[in-house]
Formats: sequence, structure tokens, C-alpha cells
Amino acid sequence: MTSPSTALLTDHYELTMLSSALRDGTADRPCVFEVFARRLPDGRRYGVVAGTGRLLAAIEAFRFGEAELSQLAAAGVVDREALDWLADYEFTGEVDGYPEGELYFPGSPILTVRAPFAAGVVLETLALSVLNHDSAIASAAARMVTAANGRRMIEMGSRRTHEEAAVACARAAYLAGFTATSNLEAGRRWGIPTAGTSAHAFTLLHDSEAAAFRAQVDKLGAGTTLLVDTYDITQGIATAVQVAGPELGAVRIDSGDVGPLARQAREQLDSLGARNTKIVVSGDLDEFAIAALRAEPVDAYGVGTSLVTGSGAPTAGMVYKLVEVDGRPVAKRSSHKESRGGRKGALRRYKQTGTAVEEVVYQAGARPQPGEHDRELQIPLLRAGQQVDGLPTIEQSRDRLRQALVSVPWEGLKLSHGEPAIPTVFG
Amino acid sequence: MTSPSTALLTDHYELTMLSSALRDGTADRPCVFEVFARRLPDGRRYGVVAGTGRLLAAIEAFRFGEAELSQLAAAGVVDREALDWLADYEFTGEVDGYPEGELYFPGSPILTVRAPFAAGVVLETLALSVLNHDSAIASAAARMVTAANGRRMIEMGSRRTHEEAAVACARAAYLAGFTATSNLEAGRRWGIPTAGTSAHAFTLLHDSEAAAFRAQVDKLGAGTTLLVDTYDITQGIATAVQVAGPELGAVRIDSGDVGPLARQAREQLDSLGARNTKIVVSGDLDEFAIAALRAEPVDAYGVGTSLVTGSGAPTAGMVYKLVEVDGRPVAKRSSHKESRGGRKGALRRYKQTGTAVEEVVYQAGARPQPGEHDRELQIPLLRAGQQVDGLPTIEQSRDRLRQALVSVPWEGLKLSHGEPAIPTVFG
Repeated sequence: MTSPSTALLTDHYELTMLSSALRDGTADRPCVFEVFARRLPDGRRYGVVAGTGRLLAAIEAFRFGEAELSQLAAAGVVDREALDWLADYEFTGEVDGYPEGELYFPGSPILTVRAPFAAGVVLETLALSVLNHDSAIASAAARMVTAANGRRMIEMGSRRTHEEAAVACARAAYLAGFTATSNLEAGRRWGIPTAGTSAHAFTLLHDSEAAAFRAQVDKLGAGTTLLVDTYDITQGIATAVQVAGPELGAVRIDSGDVGPLARQAREQLDSLGARNTKIVVSGDLDEFAIAALRAEPVDAYGVGTSLVTGSGAPTAGMVYKLVEVDGRPVAKRSSHKESRGGRKGALRRYKQTGTAVEEVVYQAGARPQPGEHDRELQIPLLRAGQQVDGLPTIEQSRDRLRQALVSVPWEGLKLSHGEPAIPTVFG
Repeated sequence: MTSPSTALLTDHYELTMLSSALRDGTADRPCVFEVFARRLPDGRRYGVVAGTGRLLAAIEAFRFGEAELSQLAAAGVVDREALDWLADYEFTGEVDGYPEGELYFPGSPILTVRAPFAAGVVLETLALSVLNHDSAIASAAARMVTAANGRRMIEMGSRRTHEEAAVACARAAYLAGFTATSNLEAGRRWGIPTAGTSAHAFTLLHDSEAAAFRAQVDKLGAGTTLLVDTYDITQGIATAVQVAGPELGAVRIDSGDVGPLARQAREQLDSLGARNTKIVVSGDLDEFAIAALRAEPVDAYGVGTSLVTGSGAPTAGMVYKLVEVDGRPVAKRSSHKESRGGRKGALRRYKQTGTAVEEVVYQAGARPQPGEHDRELQIPLLRAGQQVDGLPTIEQSRDRLRQALVSVPWEGLKLSHGEPAIPTVFG
């Protein structure tokens, strides 16, 4: 895979700040920047960190080559002094953060960047774009996975979001526990299992539904999933079993009131001897619809729009704030948007039973004595700009989230609006 | 600019359909696919077509090279026959559609693709990803531009969406009438004006607000925009004028109740002799907040989150449907999700005064006699797979939308929830 430069995925003002700071000598002041969310999306009880793996690769690709520099010169964004600085730019600072798949709460220090001002400020937009997008999707996905209660989940929302965002959505959904994605590029780029068989168009292409099913079964085998709702569902199921035999892998229902339809389909399949044929439902499902289908004989869910739009919360609202300059805490003070200055760490307190109790966010210089059941939350990510050895794989992040969700107090897993599952305590 | 392949930005099932259709000989049947929206997002009165320009380039880059083919082979998505077909794939069909900047309504045939089944079906996901995303953003942006009533609009939402979606958002916002974007890559890729000066971090970096302002003015000149709300706004404005003089370009307020704050700022600036200093406001603005500020002395708006999330409607909900096979209309029939079969055209009817009256969607073979004030809506986009000469530029699309909005009945421009501005009539 080529790594095109990510350097211009940046807001104009970062480079004008750089330019002004180079001029007056403040560009080299040692700084600490912190990524956190002031609050969770309305009514949400936890957030899921995702995107860190993508971000670290994007930081490595944050280099200004000839193409980027000549564009900045031509557009008059910055002057020669800044261009020279950018030409040599390579991030060599330190980054710590919550690993992917970790839960976060209001004020959790999700990412901490230590670098001279100029080196750190230019990463603001890129860091936030990646983390805000991927975490929003993973947070919604985790609720859906919880609602599905162990049933298979297939992400199929690519068509409802930007074509590159779609690839990141597939990754975030998988990290959150989805089984597979429809997105082929996510298969290539991230090794995520892909799935899919046919759309209504394939049935409509053929002279009859039976001919379409026959073509598909001939090619993909009887274990395939046949889409049975192009015309009449009962007839569609009958035809499907007739063509594929009782070894038919699955039927998919993509429209209508899927609860009763799934029940009817199950009865019909059983009566036809297709007792092992699975039922896949799709079409405008979100975590609430998935939960409502819990008592129905559904084997797998296909989820699209609601996943890629964060099910009502399409962005995570994280900010990237300067919290320390030359070792002293700094913070904006003019309004409700106040921040807490100073470099911070975080640990999560647990009961002896393993249930999480609170998120403790502390000043880096004043780490509380960790209790027996406390867990430190940040891990080292970049040292001297290089990825630390042994960073979690996507599979490990998936496991991490699965375990983290088990530790949440039971109210915290409710889908209804509520307070964060555990309070954040600023120590 | 390099053109990496877009071929895997595709759902798995498109290639399994291809594979099955190659097997039974239906792959070459002449087909017509249509992109349309069954409805507008809840309460919206019009949609704005955007993304077509990006899509045409993405179709040109939809080629399966060695990297793509070996991935598909390794993952077992399709067999050798399909791989061979994909290796030779290049879209050579015909595409017509609504030009960018055109309004659309429920059922408008936004894009019509004529090609053999296999050649057309593989473009479904890519076409929808691009059009659903960009049209959602442009539709929200147009409402904001209307609400701003001629004042400058700066798009600064990159940090709230996927890093590549951000570039497309900047493009869609500009197309809809925004003045500039913060996104540097949008400047490079699409020639969109970029803007930005400084963030709170720049003030916090310095020993005093005055030192920060001095550094910025020294570098960017007195015509720059100073961010005055890091500490106390009144003091910030006094310091800004002291440092830059009454020629100060603008002050930016990013927090608090910006209406009263803008009024106070205007009075203070005037009293300091800075009568030409502009006031820029930003921070959680959407079309409603922008409209509410109409009576305030605001000169420009910076809009972020609400723009890139489509202000409540992050996707346009368009679908890509097979409507014709071998010259006969086809349509799904099992539910409320019914579609109208057959290739279609569309024209918009206007009163003599230039006000739009209705959207007429007709069967391609039965075009109604166009009246004196009717306007045909689709234009040719691709012929034998090649972009038609003289396709609209972004500037022309911007003009098209401006004119289209003037033609909408006045109720259609209200921000409140309501019916589509004009009805769609199926002729």
C-alpha cells in the first residue's frame, strides 16, 4: 500500500499559528496537548475509543513533500521560513493514550501529545478527524452489538457515507464486535471478513425469481443466502428451498415488519425441512430495532445507515487542547467551555467483583496511590515519533472492548438515555 | 495527483452478483439503473445534488489492477472467470443526471446509468457513497447559506468528520455558497479558498494575550482576525485594537452567547475607532442559530460540526435501483419500498414569474410536451464511459444552486419542518 501524505488534511490556522510562532520564538516551547470529550453524546452512557491505530499511521504519513509545499506556497498560506520548517517536519514527540476498544467518559484523557508547540499543533485536525469519526461509529456499534446479544452482525452501510469513511466505519464496527462487513476495501486494508451475496437487482435481472436463485446457488452453493423479498416473501421462501434444497444457508428479509416476518419465515422453513437455514434481517435497523427483535427467530442482522451515521451521534465531539506550556498548566477561561490545565493521567477504579466504579483523571505529577482494583488507562503509543512495539491488534482491541463492557454497571448498558455509566472524578 | 483505484470501495455482494450473472449469461443484458431518493430527510423542503463531479472521476478510477485482483482472489470473493472479467473492466456505458447544484425532490432521477448488468451493478456502492454524502452536506449547507442572508460563511468542520470526508464536505459547502474552508487539502484538490488565523492554543502558548496578538499581527498584518475570547472578551478586544490599531481586520468570538456578545463587541470596536473591524462568530452554529443572529452585527460565520454532520441529516438516503432490463421496466413489489420501473426523465415546471411549480418525472419513452416555462433536468455526463465536454465547474454549480433557490416558492426556503417545496408528479 502506498502512503500518500496526510499533511494537508489540516486546518489552515494550524499553519498560520506555526508561522507566527516561528517568528517570535515560541514555536519550540515544550507543550502538552490533550484529546478529550467534554461530554458524551446526548444520553449516551459510555464512549468507545477507536481510530488510534489509523491515527498513528496517519501521523507517520504527515510529511510535507514537494507537492504539499508548492501548494502552500502558491496559495500563500505561509512564508518561506515556515515552508522550510515544514519541509523538515517529522513528528518526533511522545504520544500516550487510551488503547482502542477502551471505554471513555467525560474528561477522559484519550490522547496526550508531548512535543514542541509547532510540532504538536499541526496534528490537531488530523487527530480529531480520525478519533471523532471512528469513536462515534464504534460507540454506536457497541450498543448494537450489546442489543444483538451474541447474534451475528454484518456491517453494510458503505453506501450511506463517504467512500473512505465507509472503510473506517467497517473497521470501527468490527472493533466493536460486528462479525463482518460488506466493504471490500476494509477486507484488503484491515483484514476484516467480508460478506454479501445478492441484491434485489439480481432477482429483477432474471426472467423469474427461481432463475435468479438457481444462478446464485449454481455459483455460490446451497450454503448461500438468498434474498427472498423481491416479490412475495412466502413464495420467495418456497422457491428458495425448492431451488437450494433444505441445506439452504440462509434467507434474507430486507423490508417490511421483520419481526412477524421472521417468525413466519422460521415456521415456513421448518415446515419445509430447512431447519438449519438461518434468517438474516436488514433494512433500517438500529440498536433499538435490534433489541426489539431479541425474542424473534433472527440469526443475523445487517446494519447500514444507523451504523455509519453513529445512530444519532455522528461525531464524538472530542477536542484537542493545549494543556501545558513549559511545564505550567494552561487553560481557556472565558466561558462554560473551560478546560482543566495540566498534563493528566487516568485510572479506572473497580469493585472487587470487577464492576467499574469511577474514572479518576489526575494531574500527571500527582498520581493517586493505585488501589488493588485500579487500572491505569493510558498506554505509550509513540516514542520519539516511532510506534511502540507490541501495540494492540484489531483483534486484541475487540477483546478489550468485550471485557470492558462486561465491567460496566448494568444500568450503563441500557439503551435508554441516561447519565454516564460511571462518574469522572478529577483528582 | 495520483488516482488510486476506487474498485474495492464496493460491497462484496456486487461481485458475487457479477460472478453468478457471468455464469448464467445474464451479465450482458442491457440495463438501466437509477439513483433517486424515496423521500427527503424528515421535514426538509428540498435537497441539493452534489458529488457528481467527484463521482465521475471515481468511475474513471474504478479499475481492477493486480493489487485489487490478488486481494479478491486471496479472499475468495470471486472465481477466476470473474477475476478475468474484472481485469478488463472499464466503464464504457452512458450516464445522465442532474447537474451539481440542482435541487432534487422525492423521486427525482438524480442519476441514470445505462450499461450491461455487470458493468452497471458494480458501481452501486461507489455512486451512492459519493452522492449520499456530498448531497447531504450540500443540502444542509444551502439552508445555512440562506439563513446567513449574504454574510460570509467559513466551513471549519474538518475535525468533526473522517479526514477524507472532510475534504468532500469543504467542496460541498463551497458548492452550496460557503465563502471559504479551513481545509487545506480542499484548497489543493478543488481550488477552494482556504482561511484561518489562530486558535486558543496560540494565545495560551504566549506569556500574555498581548504577546500572542503581537506575534500574529507581526506575521499576518493588521488585517488578520484575532481570537478574543481566551480570557475576558472585553479585555481581549481592547488588547486586540491596542496591538493591531483600528485597522484590525476582524475579531473572532468562539464561545458564549454570541448574539449579545457581538453587539457589545461592535459597540466597543466602534468606540475604539475600529469601525471597519469585522466580527466573526463560531462555535456550535447551525442554520437555526445563524438565522437567530440575523439582526446582530455579525459579519461572518464559522460553521463546523453541524455542517459536516448534515445538521441532523448526515446521509441523503438515495438508492441505486435496477429499473429496466432488456428494455422492459422492472421493480421490486413486496412492500412499501416499491420503486417505479422504467428509465425516466424529469423536467421542472415554472410559473411565468420564474417560480417553480412541480417536478415532473416521466417515462423516458413518454416525455410530455414541454411547456414554455419547463426546464429539462438531466444532462449527459458520460458517453461511452468518457466525460462529456463542458461539464459544469464548481463555480458554475454554485451559480446554478443560487439561481435554483431563487426559483423556490417562498415557503420552500423556511427552515422549519414542512413538505417538499414543490410536489413530484409522476407522468
